[in-house]
Formats: sequence, C-alpha cells, structure tokens
Amino acid sequence: MIVVMHPGATQEQIHKVEQRLIELGFKTHPIYGEEKTVIGAIGDKRVLSSEAIINLPGVEKIVPILRPYKLVGRELKPENTVVRVGDVEIGSGKLVVIAGPCAVESEKQLLEAASAVKKAGADILRGGAFKPRTSPYAFQGLEEEGLKLLNRAKQETGLPVVTEAVDPRDVPLVARYADIIQVGARNMQNFRLLREVGLTGKPILLKRGMAATIEEWLMAAEYIVDAGNPHVILCERGIRTYENATRNTLDISAVPLVKELSHLPVIVDPSHASGNWKLVAPLARAAVAVGADGIMVEVHPEPLTALCDGPQSLNPNNFSELMQSLVPIARAVGKEL
Amino acid sequence: MIVVMHPGATQEQIHKVEQRLIELGFKTHPIYGEEKTVIGAIGDKRVLSSEAIINLPGVEKIVPILRPYKLVGRELKPENTVVRVGDVEIGSGKLVVIAGPCAVESEKQLLEAASAVKKAGADILRGGAFKPRTSPYAFQGLEEEGLKLLNRAKQETGLPVVTEAVDPRDVPLVARYADIIQVGARNMQNFRLLREVGLTGKPILLKRGMAATIEEWLMAAEYIVDAGNPHVILCERGIRTYENATRNTLDISAVPLVKELSHLPVIVDPSHASGNWKLVAPLARAAVAVGADGIMVEVHPEPLTALCDGPQSLNPNNFSELMQSLVPIARAVGKEL
Amino acid sequence: MIVVMHPGATQEQIHKVEQRLIELGFKTHPIYGEEKTVIGAIGDKRVLSSEAIINLPGVEKIVPILRPYKLVGRELKPENTVVRVGDVEIGSGKLVVIAGPCAVESEKQLLEAASAVKKAGADILRGGAFKPRTSPYAFQGLEEEGLKLLNRAKQETGLPVVTEAVDPRDVPLVARYADIIQVGARNMQNFRLLREVGLTGKPILLKRGMAATIEEWLMAAEYIVDAGNPHVILCERGIRTYENATRNTLDISAVPLVKELSHLPVIVDPSHASGNWKLVAPLARAAVAVGADGIMVEVHPEPLTALCDGPQSLNPNNFSELMQSLVPIARAVGKEL
Amino acid sequence: MIVVMHPGATQEQIHKVEQRLIELGFKTHPIYGEEKTVIGAIGDKRVLSSEAIINLPGVEKIVPILRPYKLVGRELKPENTVVRVGDVEIGSGKLVVIAGPCAVESEKQLLEAASAVKKAGADILRGGAFKPRTSPYAFQGLEEEGLKLLNRAKQETGLPVVTEAVDPRDVPLVARYADIIQVGARNMQNFRLLREVGLTGKPILLKRGMAATIEEWLMAAEYIVDAGNPHVILCERGIRTYENATRNTLDISAVPLVKELSHLPVIVDPSHASGNWKLVAPLARAAVAVGADGIMVEVHPEPLTALCDGPQSLNPNNFSELMQSLVPIARAVGKEL
Repeated sequence: MIVVMHPGATQEQIHKVEQRLIELGFKTHPIYGEEKTVIGAIGDKRVLSSEAIINLPGVEKIVPILRPYKLVGRELKPENTVVRVGDVEIGSGKLVVIAGPCAVESEKQLLEAASAVKKAGADILRGGAFKPRTSPYAFQGLEEEGLKLLNRAKQETGLPVVTEAVDPRDVPLVARYADIIQVGARNMQNFRLLREVGLTGKPILLKRGMAATIEEWLMAAEYIVDAGNPHVILCERGIRTYENATRNTLDISAVPLVKELSHLPVIVDPSHASGNWKLVAPLARAAVAVGADGIMVEVHPEPLTALCDGPQSLNPNNFSELMQSLVPIARAVGKEL
Repeated sequence: MIVVMHPGATQEQIHKVEQRLIELGFKTHPIYGEEKTVIGAIGDKRVLSSEAIINLPGVEKIVPILRPYKLVGRELKPENTVVRVGDVEIGSGKLVVIAGPCAVESEKQLLEAASAVKKAGADILRGGAFKPRTSPYAFQGLEEEGLKLLNRAKQETGLPVVTEAVDPRDVPLVARYADIIQVGARNMQNFRLLREVGLTGKPILLKRGMAATIEEWLMAAEYIVDAGNPHVILCERGIRTYENATRNTLDISAVPLVKELSHLPVIVDPSHASGNWKLVAPLARAAVAVGADGIMVEVHPEPLTALCDGPQSLNPNNFSELMQSLVPIARAVGKEL
Repeated sequence: MIVVMHPGATQEQIHKVEQRLIELGFKTHPIYGEEKTVIGAIGDKRVLSSEAIINLPGVEKIVPILRPYKLVGRELKPENTVVRVGDVEIGSGKLVVIAGPCAVESEKQLLEAASAVKKAGADILRGGAFKPRTSPYAFQGLEEEGLKLLNRAKQETGLPVVTEAVDPRDVPLVARYADIIQVGARNMQNFRLLREVGLTGKPILLKRGMAATIEEWLMAAEYIVDAGNPHVILCERGIRTYENATRNTLDISAVPLVKELSHLPVIVDPSHASGNWKLVAPLARAAVAVGADGIMVEVHPEPLTALCDGPQSLNPNNFSELMQSLVPIARAVGKEL
Repeated sequence: MIVVMHPGATQEQIHKVEQRLIELGFKTHPIYGEEKTVIGAIGDKRVLSSEAIINLPGVEKIVPILRPYKLVGRELKPENTVVRVGDVEIGSGKLVVIAGPCAVESEKQLLEAASAVKKAGADILRGGAFKPRTSPYAFQGLEEEGLKLLNRAKQETGLPVVTEAVDPRDVPLVARYADIIQVGARNMQNFRLLREVGLTGKPILLKRGMAATIEEWLMAAEYIVDAGNPHVILCERGIRTYENATRNTLDISAVPLVKELSHLPVIVDPSHASGNWKLVAPLARAAVAVGADGIMVEVHPEPLTALCDGPQSLNPNNFSELMQSLVPIARAVGKEL
C-alpha cells in the first residue's frame, strides 16, 4: 500500500509512520516529492485494514495497491471456474438459462411454469419459497411447502432448481431441496448467511447487492469461498441509481469487468434489473452479447395473477420467443445455446 | 390508488380494469381526460400490491395514494413515541447521546471508553460484540465475551448499553445483555432479523440501510412494530451516493422529514456518515440543530490502535469538547442536554 | 393531474383547491376516499407547473398524469423519426457507426483516424474541436483549426462529420463545418445552447447529461424541436452512480425505454460510458443487441499518445475487429450493418 | 503520482513506463512488491493527465497524489478568502444571509420581497432574471427588465444583489447590474461561462453541480480564479441521489470538508436542497451549526402565487422567525449574525 503524507508532515511524523509500518511487518520505501512525501509499504497484509495507519499524525490518505480479495480473483487462479449442477455447466462455453416464477404460489402454477420453460429450452428452474419482501403485509412465500413443490417440479421436468435462503437457520432445509442456493440482493452482506451457505458446499447463486460496489460483491463471494465452497455463480441484477424510470439500473458493464477481475461465472437477471417485462427481452439479448455466462428470467404462466413481480414476468410465449432470439446472438459471441 | 390508462386504451380495457378493481374490493371512479383516462380506486388495500392491476391490458401505471406503512406513521398516531431505557428517554425533550467504541476489543479499552463518555455526559454506551465486516479477513468481534464486557462496563458506569445483533440465532443472547438492540445498516432489510428483534420487546435501534429510501426504512420499522414491539429508534447514518470524498453522505434532511412522517424518535450517527473524525463534531452539531432526538458517536480511548473504524473515532478529549459545544445548540432548538 | 389532499384536509380547503383549478382552466373531479380526498383535474396544462397548487393549504402532493414533453413523444407522433445526413440514415433499419478520435489533435492524427474508420466500415466521423475539460489546465481543443481539419478529413473520406459546440457564440461557426452538431453531456441543460443549435436546423446529437433522468433528457430534446429543429439524435453515454469501477454506468435499459417513449433515434457511446477500451467492444455489442440505432466509438491511430481520452480509445485494429463482430448481432436483431 | 503495474508486468514494460515518465519530466522511484510493482513519479505535472501513461502495456492504474487544483486549495493559500460586496464580507466571522425570490416576477413582488428580507436582517438580495428551466414551456425570466427591477430594489433597500447569468453573451449585461454573479448548478461545468464570469472580476457565487464531486466543484472554481478572478463563493445546494423524498440531498458534510480543502467561503442553499419550505428552516439551522459562512434562502411575499419554486419559498413571516432562530446557533459556533 501507499501512505500519502500531508504536505506539511514533519520528518518525525514520516519516521513514526515508517516505524509503525515496520512493526506491522511491512518493508517501507519513502519517496520524497516536491510537495508531499509518500511511503510505499511492501507486504501482503490483506488482513490489515488501513486503520492502523490512517490516524497517525501527518497521514493524509492510504492507497491500497493489492485487491482485498484473493480466492475469487483471477490473479491467483487465471482459468475460469465452471460450476456443475447435474448435467448443466455454468461458466463453460454454453449459455445457461434459468427461468421460472418469482415465487412458488401453487402446484399448478409451478408445474405449468416449469414445463413451459423446459419446453422453451431453459436449463434450470427458479422459484422462491422464502421471499424477502419490503412490506410485512406482502406475500412472504410458501416456505417448506414451496420447497416440496420445487422438488415435485424437478421430478417432472428433470430441471435442477435454484431457490433462495434468507435465514441462516433455514439453510440446511433449503440445501436439502435446492440444487443451487440463491443469496438475494438484500442479503449480499448478510455475512452469517454467506458463511452458512458456504458450509453446505452446494452451488451458490450470489446476487449483487442493490448498492454494492463490484469490490464488495467479490468480497461477499470471498466469504463463501473462504468457508470452503468454491462453487459460486455471480448474478448482476441491477443497481440503485437516481434514475427511477426502471426499477433498477442494469450495470451491464459489470459483466465484462467482473470476468476480467474474477474467475467466477457471471449471469444477468434482466427481470429484476428492469422491473418491466417489455424490457426483459432486449436486456437479455444485451446480456448475452456482452458476454454473460447465462441469464435468469422470471416466467409466470399467467403474469396478470402473479402474487409477486408480475409486472416483470414474461408469459410462456414471450419467453419462448426470447429463447429463439438469443440463438444467433449467443453464436455471434462464440457460445452455444 | 389511481390507475392511469394508456392514451390509446379502449373502453373495454377500461371496463375490465374497473371490474378487476371491484373484485378486489375497491370502489372505482373513472375520470375521462382529453388524452388519458384515470381510474380512482377507493379502499384501504395496503396489502394489495399494485401487481394485480399493472399488467392488465391498457394500464400505463399505478399511483399509490396511501402510504404503505401504518403503525409507524403519524397519521394514525400523531404524538411522538418516547422510548425509555432505564432512566433515559429517547424522543422526549432531552437530547440523548450514545457514545463508545465501534467494537469491544478488550476490558481495558471498553472500561476506559465507558468511563470517558460517562464523564463527558453521555447517556448510553455503545460497543459492538458482533461486527459485520466487508472482508472475511477483518476482525469480527469478541461475540459473547464482548457482551460480557459490555455488562461489566454497565455495572461500573451505570450507563445502559446498545449493541448489534447480526444473526437471528444470536438475538436471545444479545437480548440478555443489551438494553437496546441495534440492527445495522446492512441488515435493515434482513426481515427475519427484524421479526426476531421485534419479538424481544426490547428497544431497537434501527439504522437506515446504506441505499434505503426513507419509505423502505419506515417499512423496516413497520416489520418490528408489526411483530409487537413499538420501541423503535431510527438512526440516520449516511447513504451511498456518487460522492466518495466522505464514507457516506449524511442525509441530514431525513431527520425533519422522518419526524414529519413518523412518530418514532430519530437520531444521527455522524461517525459512520463521514468516516472521518474531523467531520464528526460539525456534523453532530448540525444533527442537533436540525432537530434530531440524539446522536451516536464513536469514541475510542486510543483511536490510533482501534481494530475497527479508528479513522472515524473521537478520542475522549475531542468528545468532551464536542459535548460542551452541543449545549448552546441544543438549547437554541428547545432541547436540554 | 391528480391533487392529493392531506388526510386532515377540511372541506373548505378541498373547495378552495377546486376553485383555483377551475380558475386555471381545469375541470375537477374530486374522489372522497376513506383516509384521503384526491381531486382529478382535467385539461392539457403542460405549461402550468404544479407550483400554483402545491402550496395551497391541505394539499399533500400533485401527481402529473400527462408527460411533460409533447413534440418528442410517441403519443403524438408514433412513427420513428429518421435523421438524414448525406446518404446516411439514422433511425431506419440500418445500424449507424460513428467513429473517430475524442479530439482533433493534428492533420496527421485525424486523417489516419478517418481513413481507418472509413476502411473498417464506419458511416460518420467524429472529432472534437472544442473540448469541455474538467481542468482548466487540460488541452481545450484546436477550435476553428480543428473544424478545418475535420472538413479536410471529410473531403478525403467522404464521411460526414459530427463535432461538438460548447458555446452559443460558436454555433454558427460549428454549423458551417459540421454535418451533425453534438451537444455534450455537460451541456444537456445549457438551454441557451439548445435553442441556438435548434435554430440551425442541422441534425443534432444530444448526449444524455451525466445525472439526467430520461425525462429531463427528453425535455432537453423538446427544447431543440420546439426551436424548430426536429432532427435530433439521442445518445446514451453512461450515467453517474456510486459505482466507480467504470467511468460512468452505461444505462443500457434507457435504449429500449426511450424508444418506447419517443420517436427519436437513440445511439450508444460505449467509450465514455466505460472509460476503458477493453470494455468498449462488449458494450458496443450489447448496445446493438438491445436495439440501439447506432453506436459512437472513440478510435485513435495511436491511443498511447492521445491528448484526450486515450484510455477509452480503440486502435484501428481493435475497431476493425469490433465492426466484424457486430455484423451477426445486428442481423440477429433485424438490422443491417 | 503512482503508477501501479499489473501483477504480470514484465521488466521491460516497467522499464518503458519509467522511460516515458522521464521523457515527461518526472523522476521515477520503482518499488518492487511481492505481487506488483509500483512506480512513484515525482514532479508537479497537474497539466499532465494520466492518459499518457495509463495505456502503456502492463499498467494497471494511476493513482494521483497531488490534488488537481492549486489556486483554490489551502495548500498554497492557508488563510481564508474573504469576498467583499459593498459593506458585506463573506468568509469572515459574520454569517451572511442572502434572501429573496427565486425569480423576479414584477416590481411589486420584488420590492415587497426585498423590503421584507431587509427588515428581517438579510444582507444580500437574490432574484433571478434569467432562469434555466427544465421545460421550454415554463417561465424563463424577465431578462433585462428583471435586472432593472433588481437595481430598483437595491436603490430602495441598500441591499447588494446577486443574480444568475446563464449565457456567456449575457455576462456583460448581468455584470452591469449584479453585485454578485451567480453560476447555477446546471452551468457549473459550462466552462465558457466560467471563463466569462472570471473575466468580469466581480464576486461570483458558484453553485455545486447537481452531480458534481467536490473535486469537480473546486476545479470549476479553479477555472474562474485562473481567469484572474479570486472572488469566488461556493454554494452547496444539494446533490442528486437515489432518494427522492426531497428534491435533492443536501450534502451537509461538504461544508466542513471544503473548508478544509479550500480557502474559499462556502454557503448553503437549503431551499433548492430540499424543495420543501417546511425543511428550509431546520436545514438552515444545520448549515449554520456545521460552519457555513452563510445561507441563501428563497423568500416570496406570496409563495402560493410564485411563478417559480413556490413550494420551497418561505413567506416573510417564516423567514423572520428563521432569522431569529439562527442567532443563538451562530453564536454557538463563534459567528455573529
């Protein structure tokens, strides 16, 4: 890291900072500029927050040089991670499509959705049994009953299922039914939940927090991998900005950027990103074109009656058309669909 | 609520929307404008999300008229809520000062901090035993050992203590030791945790999420009150914006605005808002002047060696000076200190 | 518009609001709900800001129903606007590619860039002669000399040119040389400049402001069209968000959304959006896939020596590869390239 | 500055970067870390953007060490700048209050406002003659007629006047009538306007751009000072964030932070920051408590009929009460009122 001293820092202050750095195990390299002195500090101290130094007299700021994550970074593991779920590979050359309703509402609704997305070519079924809702008065999910219905749909279609866990106490239960456990945007920094899903060893779909930086997102993934579970799939789902013409702002640039920084697969959720079913298809096409490893799309047999996120759900016909439109784009960027 | 129809909506579409609204228990009042038709729908259906309507053919948008929260709003309970913690009242005419270290690090550190803030006039001691940290490699708190030290400090100083719970599983343990349970910014929408702390019946300090709207913040409080616990204190601690010259952007306007919308007490945390101890004192003064019911300030006996948030911690001298500077400002806005 | 009254509004207050609305030329339709009264006000009063009503006693808020723009909206003109520049059509079925250096630096640099982008298949040459720069110490452009060089490049390649005007006083000069006049992001709400370029009758490329909402962007276009110039091309170039891993956050959703709201053509500038040449190609592909009418890309013969925006400029080879990769994607979304 | 090399950068790449730095006039100090090499580059090259280096092979990023502004920074001029306007001093120990209507609407309106704010103790009269409006259909100001009315109000009350210039062509006209020329938020990066007002030598009130960083704001001030005009007053007026419960988010922390970074006086505009007259008084009190050199408040004799910004305007009574409430707070922070 680089310690930047105030222009008026005294020689003694500079010396004390060096001393402290040496105590902490760094080698120091001061550079005396015309206006300011900076001290280069060598040593792999990711654990050390800059807090031990920043308050020393004369210090203006600390500039970290190493990235704060290790296990999820490309620097130590240059080759792509491929997450396997049954026969499906996420992060290899094949584009993966996850689809299904926001929430599991009933057997009929889920089975219809599952068979429709299967028919249109989806690889994995999604459906929420535990729903984090902004309002305590909104539908909170069918819980274990929902998990059982997901299992039923899996039996019928052969599709592996992804579903969300929202409470560390539910993780073992969710892990019994889910092929992939989702950590939702609101829980991206629920560090206890991250540890708990990390301990399951199951594939984890980690959504980006609503206002998380890319670095914080990768640090959340680092928690899971650090708990012993390398099977992490990142999911960009839009970030919160001043623009409210869409529910969130899809940060499409995050996809190629994260693929440069990390070896983990990255998928895109155009449904939550936009909150508007009319935008889902174009955004899904953009996601494929930008190089995502997959997409996750909300599909409901009858969006008009959905208990959750109807406005952003495709009906089976629209989903099927979307799937067909993705084929030439996937091919154009060297992926199969 | 108001349903706005597309300019080209047909009479039949308008009719179908009305029918659906009536099925859902609303009375409808269509207004035929020159370009658009809107349908006023009367009925208190906070539970109903607009999703049952928004997807109907011809609907452009839904405009909610009633606020989504009830229990925390001033409309149903106009008088201020006063939360009592031992002899301390939060939300009455007396300004409340909560102070102490970010994290409990050791007996010596905590007792020194506690006695210093007590001496300077603080009302409540803060200190984290469970710390949510962005990096898995950072200090995560002393956990139960930290709670015991807080209890020790409480015995010695007589100050009630506030400390954070980060996991629903820890709530009973934290509730045993804490006079006020804190829900941190990252957990503001951890709905399971909200329910769990709601069930304790203890005073809850609910920090605003890093990118939470005021409405979402109040909805989070609604979860706690809906679980049967009306003793909620709101804490503004800065929001995430494009400006990164400060750690967060203190949304000072939120204080008078929330006090207009809700009867709950509101305090300000200038330490997390700024991330910079030099800004803490002026921001604390601004918080008092703007009408906050209290402030929460990080104080460490030796910020240079703090394991957590040293850069934003005041030392005992600076804290004592701050306290003195607040007296005339509190008086100017009609509060005692 | 809808006027929402406070829950405690008196009958007299409601009556006064109605009276005022009637004076302003509206017809009123009050709806008495259980908690609140709302007043529907019919009449096309885009000119009237809500300010004449909002301060009346008992008024809680105003909800506009009509969009604030007219001329640029699809409601009055459903068919796409096609802007013609020589033989090039923007907004028709053919994807338009604008390319060239950020700034015109020298004859050699510009001619090399122009011939390279022409060769790779670009339709229009870009190059700045007047540069708005954050620092007064940075290169500010060659001004009229730069315009002459653009003209020279146009003669040599046959490519029409787009260049920016930053001062209303320069508009006549720029209009003499430019085929398309660009209004930059920082000037999107420089209303005098908008009027001035509107008066030229020339095609205008209107970049979205760094923190402009889609509605404000369309209102800026409305200024130009209202001045008598319907030849407006909108350009999404990224917005400012809390995420600073990229220079801006490309709001890719804005493309299909604006195309739904407005008949004007929309193009994407992946260079400014990302600030990072490695992201330009994937973002350009995403822009085509999402349905943009064109892209604008910075290309410099030697990015390492560029005086402006080198880090986000492609070299001729990379640009040429990008062009080839766009062909199948354009075709997949029904466009020619 | 510090050049950070990629972990895999070769010795030759490091060497080439050093060579280029030396050509550009820097002295170089490479530091070889365990994972990465960084190169310290000494030399005051504010003019040089990092662009000449960032694209060199093997470079990961550039970290600037010196601030990009000089003339407005405290480093070269530690003592406060005091701007004098007639007998009024801005930036000395006395709190300055600027008040008046958003727009000059008529002689009667302006003279009433002027006499009311004078009576309540304001130091300077504000009023817009040229109004930048989001909609081309909104009231755009009385222009020269408005300037004449401001002059009339100045004669009657003795108050100096501040009014906005929106077009470089109008600056000489505005300078004839105004004691202080305002540059509005939308024009903070209208660099031609900045130069033009710089050339007048008159005091300039520079509002922060709606999404400007503190650094960009100071760079805008640098443009004015660099044009030879050191009489710059900075005005914080709220920034754009995801929160839309208020018109903007008042960045109150910017006041003490800017006062640390710069010697220029800083005032606060609580009217534009909140867009809501009920919040103006508490925010004004917070601004004084946080250490602002003054405040600028919109006051209208009859806010209900205002042509512009009525919802955020105080009436004379409320303004007078506000003024009285500020006295003890100003005194508490060591200022006179």
